[in-house]
Amino acid sequence: MIKVGVLGSTGYAGAELTRLLAGHPEAELIFLDSRRNEGQPYSVMYPHLRGIVENRCISVDVEGEKPYGDADVVFCALPHGLSQTAVQKGLESGVKVIDLSADFRIADPKVYETWYKTPHIALDALSQAVYGLVEINREKIKGANVVANPGCYPTSILLATYPLLKAGLISSEGLIADSKSGVSGAGRNLSDGSLYGQSNESVKAYGIGTHRHTPEIEQLLSDAAGTPVLIQFTPHLIPMTRGILSTIYAQPKKGITEAEIAKAYAEAYQDAPFVRVLPSGEFPQTKAVAGSNFCDIGYKLDTRTNRIVLVSAIDNLIKGAAGQAVQNMNLMFGLKETVGISQMPLWP
Amino acid sequence: MIKVGVLGSTGYAGAELTRLLAGHPEAELIFLDSRRNEGQPYSVMYPHLRGIVENRCISVDVEGEKPYGDADVVFCALPHGLSQTAVQKGLESGVKVIDLSADFRIADPKVYETWYKTPHIALDALSQAVYGLVEINREKIKGANVVANPGCYPTSILLATYPLLKAGLISSEGLIADSKSGVSGAGRNLSDGSLYGQSNESVKAYGIGTHRHTPEIEQLLSDAAGTPVLIQFTPHLIPMTRGILSTIYAQPKKGITEAEIAKAYAEAYQDAPFVRVLPSGEFPQTKAVAGSNFCDIGYKLDTRTNRIVLVSAIDNLIKGAAGQAVQNMNLMFGLKETVGISQMPLWP
Amino acid sequence: MIKVGVLGSTGYAGAELTRLLAGHPEAELIFLDSRRNEGQPYSVMYPHLRGIVENRCISVDVEGEKPYGDADVVFCALPHGLSQTAVQKGLESGVKVIDLSADFRIADPKVYETWYKTPHIALDALSQAVYGLVEINREKIKGANVVANPGCYPTSILLATYPLLKAGLISSEGLIADSKSGVSGAGRNLSDGSLYGQSNESVKAYGIGTHRHTPEIEQLLSDAAGTPVLIQFTPHLIPMTRGILSTIYAQPKKGITEAEIAKAYAEAYQDAPFVRVLPSGEFPQTKAVAGSNFCDIGYKLDTRTNRIVLVSAIDNLIKGAAGQAVQNMNLMFGLKETVGISQMPLWP
Amino acid sequence: MIKVGVLGSTGYAGAELTRLLAGHPEAELIFLDSRRNEGQPYSVMYPHLRGIVENRCISVDVEGEKPYGDADVVFCALPHGLSQTAVQKGLESGVKVIDLSADFRIADPKVYETWYKTPHIALDALSQAVYGLVEINREKIKGANVVANPGCYPTSILLATYPLLKAGLISSEGLIADSKSGVSGAGRNLSDGSLYGQSNESVKAYGIGTHRHTPEIEQLLSDAAGTPVLIQFTPHLIPMTRGILSTIYAQPKKGITEAEIAKAYAEAYQDAPFVRVLPSGEFPQTKAVAGSNFCDIGYKLDTRTNRIVLVSAIDNLIKGAAGQAVQNMNLMFGLKETVGISQMPLWP
Repeated sequence: MIKVGVLGSTGYAGAELTRLLAGHPEAELIFLDSRRNEGQPYSVMYPHLRGIVENRCISVDVEGEKPYGDADVVFCALPHGLSQTAVQKGLESGVKVIDLSADFRIADPKVYETWYKTPHIALDALSQAVYGLVEINREKIKGANVVANPGCYPTSILLATYPLLKAGLISSEGLIADSKSGVSGAGRNLSDGSLYGQSNESVKAYGIGTHRHTPEIEQLLSDAAGTPVLIQFTPHLIPMTRGILSTIYAQPKKGITEAEIAKAYAEAYQDAPFVRVLPSGEFPQTKAVAGSNFCDIGYKLDTRTNRIVLVSAIDNLIKGAAGQAVQNMNLMFGLKETVGISQMPLWP
Repeated sequence: MIKVGVLGSTGYAGAELTRLLAGHPEAELIFLDSRRNEGQPYSVMYPHLRGIVENRCISVDVEGEKPYGDADVVFCALPHGLSQTAVQKGLESGVKVIDLSADFRIADPKVYETWYKTPHIALDALSQAVYGLVEINREKIKGANVVANPGCYPTSILLATYPLLKAGLISSEGLIADSKSGVSGAGRNLSDGSLYGQSNESVKAYGIGTHRHTPEIEQLLSDAAGTPVLIQFTPHLIPMTRGILSTIYAQPKKGITEAEIAKAYAEAYQDAPFVRVLPSGEFPQTKAVAGSNFCDIGYKLDTRTNRIVLVSAIDNLIKGAAGQAVQNMNLMFGLKETVGISQMPLWP
Repeated sequence: MIKVGVLGSTGYAGAELTRLLAGHPEAELIFLDSRRNEGQPYSVMYPHLRGIVENRCISVDVEGEKPYGDADVVFCALPHGLSQTAVQKGLESGVKVIDLSADFRIADPKVYETWYKTPHIALDALSQAVYGLVEINREKIKGANVVANPGCYPTSILLATYPLLKAGLISSEGLIADSKSGVSGAGRNLSDGSLYGQSNESVKAYGIGTHRHTPEIEQLLSDAAGTPVLIQFTPHLIPMTRGILSTIYAQPKKGITEAEIAKAYAEAYQDAPFVRVLPSGEFPQTKAVAGSNFCDIGYKLDTRTNRIVLVSAIDNLIKGAAGQAVQNMNLMFGLKETVGISQMPLWP
Repeated sequence: MIKVGVLGSTGYAGAELTRLLAGHPEAELIFLDSRRNEGQPYSVMYPHLRGIVENRCISVDVEGEKPYGDADVVFCALPHGLSQTAVQKGLESGVKVIDLSADFRIADPKVYETWYKTPHIALDALSQAVYGLVEINREKIKGANVVANPGCYPTSILLATYPLLKAGLISSEGLIADSKSGVSGAGRNLSDGSLYGQSNESVKAYGIGTHRHTPEIEQLLSDAAGTPVLIQFTPHLIPMTRGILSTIYAQPKKGITEAEIAKAYAEAYQDAPFVRVLPSGEFPQTKAVAGSNFCDIGYKLDTRTNRIVLVSAIDNLIKGAAGQAVQNMNLMFGLKETVGISQMPLWP
């Protein structure tokens, strides 16, 4: 059994991790950390896990001596900024770390500082971190000690875009990603915008041109294209709990066909159990992936406008956070990629 | 492996059955029946199961010779009224049947006719049918050939009320059940009231004093009390997809205490893996059971008004339909009760 | 023009007051108070009123000299407890006050203290306060200087129940009110339970037997019955923004008929423009009153169980708060009751 | 008083028309047509108008003699295809017609036939029809006998885009509109996709590259640009009842500034009471316009990517259908543009 601890276990991503790990046949939850809820039974905050997760929350002092005890791996679901010390400490203690914050996703600390407005203070860990988008980096992840679990928006955008850019089917210029996210993406923090009254029956764009997931997306796309890529990324908040749908607009390279698109995806994802590429003319919806680790992808070459439209759907808390994190853990510990995360989507 | 067929597989209950059975380690789906969608790949209607359920729908002629082929068990998720022939045929063919309609829940055909406005035409099967509320009828179910799977509302009301009535803690008079159901309870039929525009952002009562689940509830409560019981049952439609919350008002027998209530539940459900009775003062919510086969129950003895208030929560499509049906199958085939239906609830 | 100020203008009830008063042909908004948002343009918090309400919020010192300036009337939408001084001050300054908190609804300060756990410190104002349920207290309100605007739940329950109790058609014993409220009823405060992720796709009961609206309901019902009345009141939170539906269970007096019920309502509400009593067998839904000051009422005499079931629907922020408050203002200033609040409901 | 009839009064757009006209101080509803609900009181289908609209539905034979009686104006809210005869007949009878279908929006019948797969059979009426986007065609509308009321998506896209294209600030190439609509946009027809269970908690794109609103948008944009314009238009269905948010991506002409954008909007909309252009850096949300005839517009010049992002929000049933239709009527009859449609948005 893999001994597992969760830092920041009472946010929404932490709660999904806890749920998935509680049901994982090869994992044993040895601690659930939450500063805010120290000492409380976990099921007080999360009554769905009553009778399943009986742990009480503890508050881990990440600055202390051997803070993670016997853990083989620690999932870090702390807010952006707080995880740097926690991850560094794991590395020093010989404990593998899967970090769900943004702190280890951007390879270049200067780019990190530009977008996150704070210098990076764990450069050693940063230099060892592998970007945990399994379908792209599967082999590197297997040997990693620190994995930076991808952001929810980047996961949805990159899985649709990366293979086509890599295959040279779309231009590296003019990319636009228009994403629609459920409200759980904003976490369980108390903010006006996350109130039911403010977000129900409404849709809005936010962070236009400034959202912090942008450099993470561009870093991967630039790798795929072999040249710097800029993307216009517009996130939207829509009135549902779970799910992200990303609609991506790209310029096709001259003369390409839908068959080539299909082939590029087929090759990229032939061994990817969680990516479902739909036939031409069919498009995904978030309901079809909700509660699962799937990413569904649809595509269309619009010959009238000479543009490719890609649509991808994920559950933001699973493939966009906790599920992908467990998928990374499975690889890091030599397990089959699907162990513990093969739950089927729920419909309706 | 148990060979399983599903009649009426493309309604919401049928789809949940299909999903649960597709993941059941001891079951093999040998046919999915749907008159409406004959010949179509199942995942056209239910894209969440793309890549998981590859069957095409067939249309079974239940009047035909040996209509269920090699099946060991058939789940019948046909509309009320249509299932009588289908069940009778199963019985005659030596195939076990779990019927999700109301047709075999009411033991007395005259009561059935009064509430359903049509005579019962499968009296032989009716006489053998066992009411499949596992937590009450576990032993009878193990030997049954025909199981009448309980209605969603009755499940939520009976699990909270039966043990207290049986233990003599509440009066058999003056019972009121005020239930709140998500819209999926109305099924996938095209009706004005099930449109998003009609049901979103609204709540209404319906079928006041006339809902057909009433006699089913009263039949079981009368058994528990050993005397005829009437219940005032008011269902409501609320704007969510899954879940039923039932709030039940009962008169306590003189001098009883909350400790006695707790004890009655503890005894009734000590071996029931899917019932979670909450501590005094805590109450369930549907989110804590959504996606699972759990029924959560809370209780309060209000000494100011001298009344007991019970609250129970289920996922109407799982414990209220497909999950309970699989639970019945497990018992009928000697499996552990929880096989294939131990999915944890999803939160948020 | 009536000069109007609003204390606590940036909560949901305050915002509805502001919206209704901005469109009221006889009212002029002279100040919008908000401690939290002092100095900010109102439309920053409430962009729907951009271009309509151009005021900046001020912070009124209710302890100061003549705090309400030239105002003819002040609406007090402060949290429970804070409004006592504010109302007392209005009375002393010769300014009429309509208080939307609970502080002046309970005539007996001892009962207030029992339920609100704090002594009442404005007994003078309390003694003059009129309970502003227009359809019951219309004449008293016309001459009032302090009006206690009813709670949302009490409004929905009392309008359905009061006339039948007054007419002696139902027993004063055994009353049960099972209410379902949209999330806006919890206000705009930042609390875990008001987050979209916690309240969407879920329903729960809360405050069973202890909700503070109970004594307010019982006070009026006792007046109607001429004898002390207890009610079992259970509020529920359901996933929608606006609306309350109350389902009320009552014991009919021996031999009464639905015609008598209809007659009692007709007499009580013949001059009430905002109450719509539905024909026998039809029941209200919150969508049919959303955005309006209407209260819709349905009733059923269930002869099988010998019980009366009443159902009422209101928009909790309008008839349950701001609309009713403006209705009170209209009466207090000799205007027609409907001025400024005759907006039609929105459907779908 | 203007005598008004409504054809197709029981769809969602028809119902909003009926509601707005019932409250319009200069309009008198003389008939409400509905083939499906002939003879029924209107409030049976739409209980929110109980006591307000007492008409019974009639079924108008548009092929008959003088089918619209004394009407001064007829609103035609029939499905696409059915309205051609109805409009032609109005023209011949000297009755003004405001058509909410798509049948008279496309000036070129060949383009109509290409997208709608059926020839146009009312070419005379088509040649006289004015496209009723008030803010663009105000003067033409005043003298029109037939007004083609714009589609919901086109309204949201054109109001944001037209002025910038007209002012030469953005390129006529590379335009993309990514729109998100509430479910009421699909009308009250019984279809699987409009069921609560299918659309709640999900988002999907549809009609990618093929949606029939495309030529209508392109026709106006081509007028603005003085050259043929193609647009990539992707509609999405999101789980809310009312509202459309359109996010539009455009290429700025070299060297333009946000000040120029602001100026272009200010000039275009200085006399437009229903368009609210937000300050730079603020963006609209549908909640801020719900229940009103407003269109809110925000803009951003992203210098990093050299792209302009526009966001607009409307209530699809009001500014996107019935409200705009009444706005057209007001102009056609010499009334002030805002009469009867100045309801404020509802929040929350």
